[in-house]
Amino acid sequence: MKPFEKLKILDLTRVLAGPYASMMLADFGADVIKIETPDVGDDSRGFGPFVGKESAYFMSLNRGKRSMTLNLKLPAAQELFRDLVKKSDVVLENYRPGTMEKFGLGYEELCKINPRLIYAACSGFGHSGPYMEKAAYDVIVQGMGGIMSITGQEGSEPTRVGASVGDITAGLFTVIGLVTALYTRTISGRGQKVDVAMLDCQVAILENAISRYLVTGNVPGPIGNRHSSITPFEAFQAKDGYIIIAVGNDRLWAKFCNLVKREDLIGDERFVNNAQRTKNQKQLKAVLDGIFPGKTVDGWIEALEAEGIPCGPINTVDRIMEDPQIKARDMILEIEHPVAGKLKMPGLPIKLSETPGAVLHPAPLLGQHTDEILKEMLGLSPEQIAEMRTKKVL
Amino acid sequence: MKPFEKLKILDLTRVLAGPYASMMLADFGADVIKIETPDVGDDSRGFGPFVGKESAYFMSLNRGKRSMTLNLKLPAAQELFRDLVKKSDVVLENYRPGTMEKFGLGYEELCKINPRLIYAACSGFGHSGPYMEKAAYDVIVQGMGGIMSITGQEGSEPTRVGASVGDITAGLFTVIGLVTALYTRTISGRGQKVDVAMLDCQVAILENAISRYLVTGNVPGPIGNRHSSITPFEAFQAKDGYIIIAVGNDRLWAKFCNLVKREDLIGDERFVNNAQRTKNQKQLKAVLDGIFPGKTVDGWIEALEAEGIPCGPINTVDRIMEDPQIKARDMILEIEHPVAGKLKMPGLPIKLSETPGAVLHPAPLLGQHTDEILKEMLGLSPEQIAEMRTKKVL
Repeated sequence: MKPFEKLKILDLTRVLAGPYASMMLADFGADVIKIETPDVGDDSRGFGPFVGKESAYFMSLNRGKRSMTLNLKLPAAQELFRDLVKKSDVVLENYRPGTMEKFGLGYEELCKINPRLIYAACSGFGHSGPYMEKAAYDVIVQGMGGIMSITGQEGSEPTRVGASVGDITAGLFTVIGLVTALYTRTISGRGQKVDVAMLDCQVAILENAISRYLVTGNVPGPIGNRHSSITPFEAFQAKDGYIIIAVGNDRLWAKFCNLVKREDLIGDERFVNNAQRTKNQKQLKAVLDGIFPGKTVDGWIEALEAEGIPCGPINTVDRIMEDPQIKARDMILEIEHPVAGKLKMPGLPIKLSETPGAVLHPAPLLGQHTDEILKEMLGLSPEQIAEMRTKKVL
Repeated sequence: MKPFEKLKILDLTRVLAGPYASMMLADFGADVIKIETPDVGDDSRGFGPFVGKESAYFMSLNRGKRSMTLNLKLPAAQELFRDLVKKSDVVLENYRPGTMEKFGLGYEELCKINPRLIYAACSGFGHSGPYMEKAAYDVIVQGMGGIMSITGQEGSEPTRVGASVGDITAGLFTVIGLVTALYTRTISGRGQKVDVAMLDCQVAILENAISRYLVTGNVPGPIGNRHSSITPFEAFQAKDGYIIIAVGNDRLWAKFCNLVKREDLIGDERFVNNAQRTKNQKQLKAVLDGIFPGKTVDGWIEALEAEGIPCGPINTVDRIMEDPQIKARDMILEIEHPVAGKLKMPGLPIKLSETPGAVLHPAPLLGQHTDEILKEMLGLSPEQIAEMRTKKVL
């Protein structure tokens, strides 16, 4: 049994935030029907890098889904969509607010024809407020939402997070809202609308930056790799790369000083407790910068772990692929794609003991399942489907 | 009605990842019973900044929960916990793997006394694999999971994301797993174990970095604020701060050139299409760096938006608090705390139309609800509770 195996999801999302959300639903067994514009499809089918003509970007985000084409600008396609909605559990979309209403397919319309429908919308700024209709991209919400203002080396310019956390966290919050609405439906019998904005999600993950500002009045800026209140708790340059250490208390600090044969530092007034070490972080870093180049990253990890001092390397992507823990947790999967061949991608980070998820199919080709879906869900004949295709509905 | 209003969650989590997860459950109406060690409680009660003696950090993550104390090292407390488990839906914990087993409270034990129990564990490296028993902190999994290796200015050292995305994304994936298990229970009638590792979650959010590496063989590094394949799509220094622009296609590029009265750039061979602009990004940046200081951030936003060019400021935390969209979406809440007074914190980024979440109570004082919970759930008398307190069980 898969958690969502009887659920039908009509997935109108494109590019990243929405497809990331529907990927998680597909991984847990939902029948995700990706509805794409004829001829072109999801924009991300055109994003490199490519394997042959297939986008690796698209394939890694759309595994396990089926694809059908539908030109929602045409009334006949809108009618077909409404027929599909009657037999589905979820509509998921990441259009700019107002677009679905223009098609006559807004939540208010759709919930009338299927009161059990869950309608999840993931947009840049949400379905209310003065910025509602503005376009958003990951880098824009990372900027507006504050995370860039606290990321970067000390004194440097604000820095974008290298992964698209503007999109991905919005995808995660959307899944939480959607599954919460599914759970609620088992009690109430009714669906509802889930409205998630990328900008809101950025504010929600700012963590203690907001309370630090409100309590102290100081506007937080980038502080590099260190911790705002624990020291040493940052990255250092070892002989062949970076090593991160997390010395959370005075006991670990003493162990560290003994390990590196600098017992003199334990009694050093500047570093005698965490408050002093944090106050004199720059001086301490200068001392430690002289110590860490003495061993390789692996050498440090072995030595530090023997003393129970939390530490780790800064892995680049090539090292991640070979990491024994990441392998043991099945966090890199290999999927066979009918056109692109074998393809590696990230695995499922949620491990369920009784109803585990899995990737059952590779990403679909554009419109690969149009005919089978229309036959299976709406009982259309090959002739009816052919006629629609002629009329550019599909 | 609230989505989770009849659910009882026994919440053993501390600090960030776990409390962030249980906060979301409390926001949607679950009865989250935070079980803390007597006298000390959640370590984060000691994290600054403070309002009076109360930690703003703790208060912003533990709103809407109840607190009871329990010294799980004592057999009498373990027995009490098992009695609570019989009457609960969820146990949520973020101990190092093996700790709950040492208390005799591992999943294998607990599911015997309550087969409907959902047991969600959020740990650094997960409940399997060679690193299972290692300690993890946010900065360590950010380093090991690769996000630091792709964050930072071009050519600079790897950079930690300024918000604790190692913890927070693990909290989000844990909620998804937990609510998925709750939904599954409505069909199967049985609970299960949810195992989420912070490191796995970092791999899961690396997005296209993995496919870029696998297809091209190039190890991705930090590229600052720009986009790897769209240009110009980055931050520039305006007169009074940074402005981000996202010029996604040639049509927008022409509009931009007209706006800044540099029609000559449209036909410039180096910048004639997106591929050329991306190839010559450094040269283009040098040109644009000469243009953006000419207006203020607000001036640019007005001018760019009039042309339909996606853009936005880089907001610092103080500006976020005043942003009209963030206000309109209720993304900054004010909560009244009995000791600390009025306190602002981030709101709920998931807007449900029929069963919206809300913050109903401020964060609890340590052990504030011990007596009421023991009376209400287990029917203990004041005398029995007093005796347990004398024996240091509570």
